[in-house]
Amino acid sequence: MTLTLDQLNAGTPADVAHLLDGTYEHSPWIPERAAAWRPFKSLVHLKHALVQAVREGGRDAQLGLIRAHPELAGKAMVSKTLTAESTNEQGKAGLTDCTPEEFTKLLKLNADYNAKFGFPFILAVRGPRGLGLNRHEIIATFERRLGNHPDFELAECLRNIHRIAEIRLNDKFGVTPALGNEVWDWAEQLARHSDAGYAERGELTVTYLTDAHRACAHQLSLWMRSECGFDEVHTDAVGNVVGVYCGTREQAKRLLTGSHYDTVRNGGKYDGRLGILVPMACVRELHRAGRRLPFDIEVVGFAEEEGQRYKATFLGSGALTGHFDMAWLDQADADGITMRQAMQHAGLNVNDIVRLKRDPARYQGFVEVHIEQGPVLSDLDIPLGVVTSINGSVRYVGEYVGMASHAGTTPMGTRRDAATAAAELALFVERRAAAVPDLVGTMGMLEVPAGSINVVPGRCRFSLDIRATSNAVRDACASDVLAQAHAIAQRRGLHLQLEETMRAAAAPSAPAWQQRWERAVSALGLPLHHMPSGAGHDAMKLHEAMPQAMLFVRGLNAGISHNPLEAVTNDDTELVVQAFTYLLEQLALENT
Amino acid sequence: MTLTLDQLNAGTPADVAHLLDGTYEHSPWIPERAAAWRPFKSLVHLKHALVQAVREGGRDAQLGLIRAHPELAGKAMVSKTLTAESTNEQGKAGLTDCTPEEFTKLLKLNADYNAKFGFPFILAVRGPRGLGLNRHEIIATFERRLGNHPDFELAECLRNIHRIAEIRLNDKFGVTPALGNEVWDWAEQLARHSDAGYAERGELTVTYLTDAHRACAHQLSLWMRSECGFDEVHTDAVGNVVGVYCGTREQAKRLLTGSHYDTVRNGGKYDGRLGILVPMACVRELHRAGRRLPFDIEVVGFAEEEGQRYKATFLGSGALTGHFDMAWLDQADADGITMRQAMQHAGLNVNDIVRLKRDPARYQGFVEVHIEQGPVLSDLDIPLGVVTSINGSVRYVGEYVGMASHAGTTPMGTRRDAATAAAELALFVERRAAAVPDLVGTMGMLEVPAGSINVVPGRCRFSLDIRATSNAVRDACASDVLAQAHAIAQRRGLHLQLEETMRAAAAPSAPAWQQRWERAVSALGLPLHHMPSGAGHDAMKLHEAMPQAMLFVRGLNAGISHNPLEAVTNDDTELVVQAFTYLLEQLALENT
Repeated sequence: MTLTLDQLNAGTPADVAHLLDGTYEHSPWIPERAAAWRPFKSLVHLKHALVQAVREGGRDAQLGLIRAHPELAGKAMVSKTLTAESTNEQGKAGLTDCTPEEFTKLLKLNADYNAKFGFPFILAVRGPRGLGLNRHEIIATFERRLGNHPDFELAECLRNIHRIAEIRLNDKFGVTPALGNEVWDWAEQLARHSDAGYAERGELTVTYLTDAHRACAHQLSLWMRSECGFDEVHTDAVGNVVGVYCGTREQAKRLLTGSHYDTVRNGGKYDGRLGILVPMACVRELHRAGRRLPFDIEVVGFAEEEGQRYKATFLGSGALTGHFDMAWLDQADADGITMRQAMQHAGLNVNDIVRLKRDPARYQGFVEVHIEQGPVLSDLDIPLGVVTSINGSVRYVGEYVGMASHAGTTPMGTRRDAATAAAELALFVERRAAAVPDLVGTMGMLEVPAGSINVVPGRCRFSLDIRATSNAVRDACASDVLAQAHAIAQRRGLHLQLEETMRAAAAPSAPAWQQRWERAVSALGLPLHHMPSGAGHDAMKLHEAMPQAMLFVRGLNAGISHNPLEAVTNDDTELVVQAFTYLLEQLALENT
Repeated sequence: MTLTLDQLNAGTPADVAHLLDGTYEHSPWIPERAAAWRPFKSLVHLKHALVQAVREGGRDAQLGLIRAHPELAGKAMVSKTLTAESTNEQGKAGLTDCTPEEFTKLLKLNADYNAKFGFPFILAVRGPRGLGLNRHEIIATFERRLGNHPDFELAECLRNIHRIAEIRLNDKFGVTPALGNEVWDWAEQLARHSDAGYAERGELTVTYLTDAHRACAHQLSLWMRSECGFDEVHTDAVGNVVGVYCGTREQAKRLLTGSHYDTVRNGGKYDGRLGILVPMACVRELHRAGRRLPFDIEVVGFAEEEGQRYKATFLGSGALTGHFDMAWLDQADADGITMRQAMQHAGLNVNDIVRLKRDPARYQGFVEVHIEQGPVLSDLDIPLGVVTSINGSVRYVGEYVGMASHAGTTPMGTRRDAATAAAELALFVERRAAAVPDLVGTMGMLEVPAGSINVVPGRCRFSLDIRATSNAVRDACASDVLAQAHAIAQRRGLHLQLEETMRAAAAPSAPAWQQRWERAVSALGLPLHHMPSGAGHDAMKLHEAMPQAMLFVRGLNAGISHNPLEAVTNDDTELVVQAFTYLLEQLALENT
């Protein structure tokens, strides 16, 4: 018997709690409280109401919820009453088949974890794809999370509890995130290709025009052509994989979408790739249904965005806006292979690059789906976020030079301490940035070169990175920071060397396109969350040629990115495919 | 015709200015103002009055004084009217014999220096010994000082002007600092011995029981016996060179004095050694005069203080207080040679070490002369400082662990930035230490390991060094700093690892002995300046057995030490020999 939203929407809060019994461990207060958000418009709306109920329940109730869970594979497995779900889930993860060494290790981890946090370790052992983590993954996660700060770890436990509940609800409602699973599995398959030297260590690295990179391009082309039913698929002169699903009206302006398929070294499986695979899944659904929209859909897998092999970024999207710098061709990689040689080896014709520039008049606009690469959506327990602007940024490297002197014999009043100067600046940057919403400022590098415990620092190197949703906000902050940096040097009697190393303009979303994403998100029954993009994306390049807007998907593990821990769930992926589909439907209506 | 103090003390201020004409370049206001300090009790009192006049003259007058000087070997040498003294001094330094390349270099340095500071480069070209710097030394100093902060460089010019004036005054008064010159020359001769690998580069390194170390011991013994007239001279079981100049009363308690003759790697010529050579010079004067004091004077050249070759410090003085740890003998140096092997090779009998412990009942106390190794006396333009206490210290190494995250995508409010936490702590330490006189606190090491410009620091390592004249003041500060370190971690949601790595008790000077130094300094006509010793010294060890007090000598180059730039003048050295002699005379009276 599967559950329906109608059943939940019809009863009393107590009925809701009864119907959802077993979703949250021994905690009927959660569905009872969530009932206040009825009528539930969708399963994801219900899930969000439950999340909100826990958020508003307060810390004691949250701790109670966590403590209602059994220890993972610990003594509790014999001493405590497990819910049927718990036993089943832990069994699926293969924890019942632990070796004696693994069991001993888990006992120790449980003891250490409890001693540190005072609550049991909670992990959604069925994982982001719902099929179950293996024992090695579980133990590695356990070890890693033992290092977390208690506040963060409490929130991480709650997030895992919500993931456990999500999977249980899918089962209760007989729902499978089929589109999400397919995209997730594509990302997994694509990640099998990794550059030599990294593949052997199980790390994902796909840099421009390596064998692994070309294998990815081949794989994407193959899927576009044979699985998704794109009408035209080709690899262009810089290695972009371009697929076009034709519309019914030849005159109609095209929709451009996509993202990059290259990765950083030892990166994640979703950064960039999700933005290619999600529209591919949408096209496949249209093709399966035999539907065509009034306009062409052009999906581009950009060959290069990360700037890992050569000192140039956005090669792929830059080629579409006429910003491919032919001087880049003579750059050599670490092995001395020039970009020109790499392109010739890949069978690309550099003379064709100039022809890749798109005519903006032929396009409605550009949309891009991307994993957030930050902690915001994860913190808020919200699956999707609408991007308002790709932040403008400016970077500096600097050094304070004072006078190194004996830490014991130099009175405080006569010091020229370069490190305390940098410290003052770091705190100013932090305060100044925190005072304005969506402004961020970071001193990422900080070092007293060859510092000694008994020497007053004579030199201190640092970096600055300032980003804001508009150039004006960025520049106002940068100007204050630079003034302060010099004032600190002046007041403390130090030299300051400061060099600007990078400056990128902000790319605010086109309002009409941002609204289309907003309507898509709302239609799913999700709360609307607006946010800037702190990182740069291909949309930033396309921004120079046409209106653009992005949609972000929540990242697991506090949104970590450029890291093997980067992850999304199949359920969130399902939601983003649905949101993209909704955007296409809106455009179809508008183009009729 | 030499000048006398009587002449100066008799006339009007204008007479003083006239009599001292040429001492300060075109600046009669300086002697006129200095006349207010009359009667001048000694030449050094006059020198100090002139220094005070310039200090109180204000910045404009000081700049005027600096600008009254010609450029060094620059265009000014032909275009400006030089005083006879200037021409003579620059000639002595060989600047008139510059090669064309050197002259071009000097022109360029003059231009750069003027552009940066707006005043001419002033250097006392006759140097710390009064015999003249060579062209290489002058050019190197010019290049180095070009990097200074303008405020510091202005003060450095004034200090050079005072040194020029000091030498001119010696000439006017027909005075030669003969004792100072002899000690200075001994230090120079002793510095000819340097360890293999360092000697070749012209660097001074004398570590425990190397060939150079043993050559130093031999040289000291030789001087003690043949030049100074010590009655008993021997090298003891740990390599200390011990000389005794017998007194007339066998029952009288001995005076113990001395310091160490080992050095750090690429160190200075005066650290430690001055404390051996100064009492040697005093004994030589007694011997020359055929005088004996009522009590024995025991001068010890301690073999080891710096802990460079083995992980143990104060081997020499520690042996005298019974703190030589026999376990040290099995420590190996970087080449695998144990301390026991090194001692055997040097012909030392380790079984005799226990017998080196002195019976405190046989000693009046311990005094030690030492170069300051800090900027205080140099800043104040005062040659000698009376030490009130050797600071107690405590050291920690620590690390904040937060969460590394994307600098663009992590909002300020959700960061766990380890570097800003360390920055907050650095500024707290600075404020807390500055609030209490003679308390110092330093974060000497500060580093975001593998920091990136676009990553919020997840880790930040640092060190702490806190020193104070008393253990109580040190501990109160350390306690506040540790509490703050943990409060920062708590508030910012970080982990803090903190480990105490060193703790040394404060060694306050024995009041009676400190007063003896005070009387000696005052008797010279010098102002009395009290100061703690921020660095550790052999007196700290002897403190455990008997009353002790130290006297500091001003270091040039902002008091830099553990560095080839460590320097003292012959005039300051003369003063410290005179002060030591005065202390001996006092003791002679007291022991009568």
